[in-house]
Amino acid sequence: MSTSARSRVLISVTGWDPSDWVRLMSAEHDVVLEPEGSADPSIDYAVVWKHPQGILKSLPNLKAIFSLGAGVDHIMTDTDLPDVPIARVVADNLTRHMVEYVTWRVMDHHRQGSTYRAQQAKKVWSEPSQPTTDEVNVGIMGLGELGRAAASALLTLGFNVTGWARSPKNIEGVTCYAGNEGLADFLAATDILVVLLPHTPATEGMINYELLRGLRRDNALGGASLINGGRGKLQNEADILRALDDGTLKEASLDVFQVEPLPQTSGLWEHPRVFITPHAAATSDPAHLAPLILEQIKRFERGEPLNHLVDMQAGY
Amino acid sequence: MSTSARSRVLISVTGWDPSDWVRLMSAEHDVVLEPEGSADPSIDYAVVWKHPQGILKSLPNLKAIFSLGAGVDHIMTDTDLPDVPIARVVADNLTRHMVEYVTWRVMDHHRQGSTYRAQQAKKVWSEPSQPTTDEVNVGIMGLGELGRAAASALLTLGFNVTGWARSPKNIEGVTCYAGNEGLADFLAATDILVVLLPHTPATEGMINYELLRGLRRDNALGGASLINGGRGKLQNEADILRALDDGTLKEASLDVFQVEPLPQTSGLWEHPRVFITPHAAATSDPAHLAPLILEQIKRFERGEPLNHLVDMQAGY
Repeated sequence: MSTSARSRVLISVTGWDPSDWVRLMSAEHDVVLEPEGSADPSIDYAVVWKHPQGILKSLPNLKAIFSLGAGVDHIMTDTDLPDVPIARVVADNLTRHMVEYVTWRVMDHHRQGSTYRAQQAKKVWSEPSQPTTDEVNVGIMGLGELGRAAASALLTLGFNVTGWARSPKNIEGVTCYAGNEGLADFLAATDILVVLLPHTPATEGMINYELLRGLRRDNALGGASLINGGRGKLQNEADILRALDDGTLKEASLDVFQVEPLPQTSGLWEHPRVFITPHAAATSDPAHLAPLILEQIKRFERGEPLNHLVDMQAGY
Repeated sequence: MSTSARSRVLISVTGWDPSDWVRLMSAEHDVVLEPEGSADPSIDYAVVWKHPQGILKSLPNLKAIFSLGAGVDHIMTDTDLPDVPIARVVADNLTRHMVEYVTWRVMDHHRQGSTYRAQQAKKVWSEPSQPTTDEVNVGIMGLGELGRAAASALLTLGFNVTGWARSPKNIEGVTCYAGNEGLADFLAATDILVVLLPHTPATEGMINYELLRGLRRDNALGGASLINGGRGKLQNEADILRALDDGTLKEASLDVFQVEPLPQTSGLWEHPRVFITPHAAATSDPAHLAPLILEQIKRFERGEPLNHLVDMQAGY
């Protein structure tokens, strides 16, 4: 008989094939994809990504909920959640992918990739003025695990890095601004804006025309750039298009969108100064993430506190 | 009377407006743009970029020659050079720009920028498999100042970095290969090839079909990529196009070309998997470079050896 008892785990995902997750979690636990009946008492843990609203509340013996990503907005939209701990997944692999994405997009805006691509299409041989990284300010909104890791990589590349978060932070080498009162100063010092905020009621729609209007446009790159690697619901896409077309914004790299997949009718697809990736900045590879959730379950069974618990007050 | 006497400096450049150089060098020396007569005895130093062949030999009192760039191929093609020291310019600013260029292009190949741009043009929402940097090998040909600095930046981003040079090198964290006997092993381990070699008779045309054939194509990125930030004469452009079209090469970022500006008739301009910059990877900003040459002249006048002397045997 095994020393660690198998538990029963519900894997509830929308929009993905869960088979890799089922295979990996089944190594240590019994896995089901749906509760049995309306109040399944056999389920101990739920591993979820956009689960059907209300199904978690119906599980009388549920002990904890695990998100399959760094964000938990897809859980928090369920207004009928049971009173059990909810944990995010914080994976080196996920952080690493996001830092790569941010580095890639910041470098492309910094080195004026869209200008060169437009020139090449017309066979134009011409060199725009090019500042070095130490003449450019990158501002990061959201200073959690991902924001801090991105800041560190950008500092290494020689950029000036500033940060903004709702509450005050202290990060070596990064000038940090906080709260509504710090936002205008943060934006006024930012040439390239990187958004890595969580999606909460307080941040929804925050990347709007008025905010973009506050960025530093009169800079060595000839305009301000936006990179959103956070959540689509943070941005107002009509405002982004307006800002691109009136010169408020020079260009944008967007990995996330208000509606995903991005509708075919969106004006973002064909905009020459928008670069689109399909919510692919940081992939959630089951082979990397499943062991982290299995380890969390072991911690819980030993009576230890879960890591990366969601703060229900803050909503992330 | 000033303690340091003014010398007479010839500035001989082709293809640029030398006025910034004249202004900056005139602060400490008398500057001329052409020798007076056929054997001008008044000229002490020559600061050159593609000077007319033979004019340096005719200067009886010339003490040293300074290149306006990191490369000296534009000097070494002069078969009638006087027997005076020749120094390259090694500027933090130039190195910094080149490291940025390499980082930018490596990240774009690594994160499959051309795939996403092609998808966006067709409004396709699809995520290709994406390795992390530690699953990708970047191979750098040329391990001088620029190659070493690029290697360091790429290591920080988490890539596996290997290097190749004509003579054996020892660089922490970088597996180094040397000479003709080390080339095949180096190429077989390389997913993304970065060329930062000097242009010499030994390296001319080295980036040809046979060499590209040796790269690792069966890799996590679905093919091998080429980045040339060195010199155009290193590459055979017909071979690069052939390699792109038969699958030997997945994509290429080229900053330099066999003939510059790149002729309008070149097939590289319109190739969907070629990214062109107009010899702009590392700009030679006179405001950054002129003080370094003025300092070299001061060293020489004090009887100290010049920095960054060209090895006449090696040709760079």
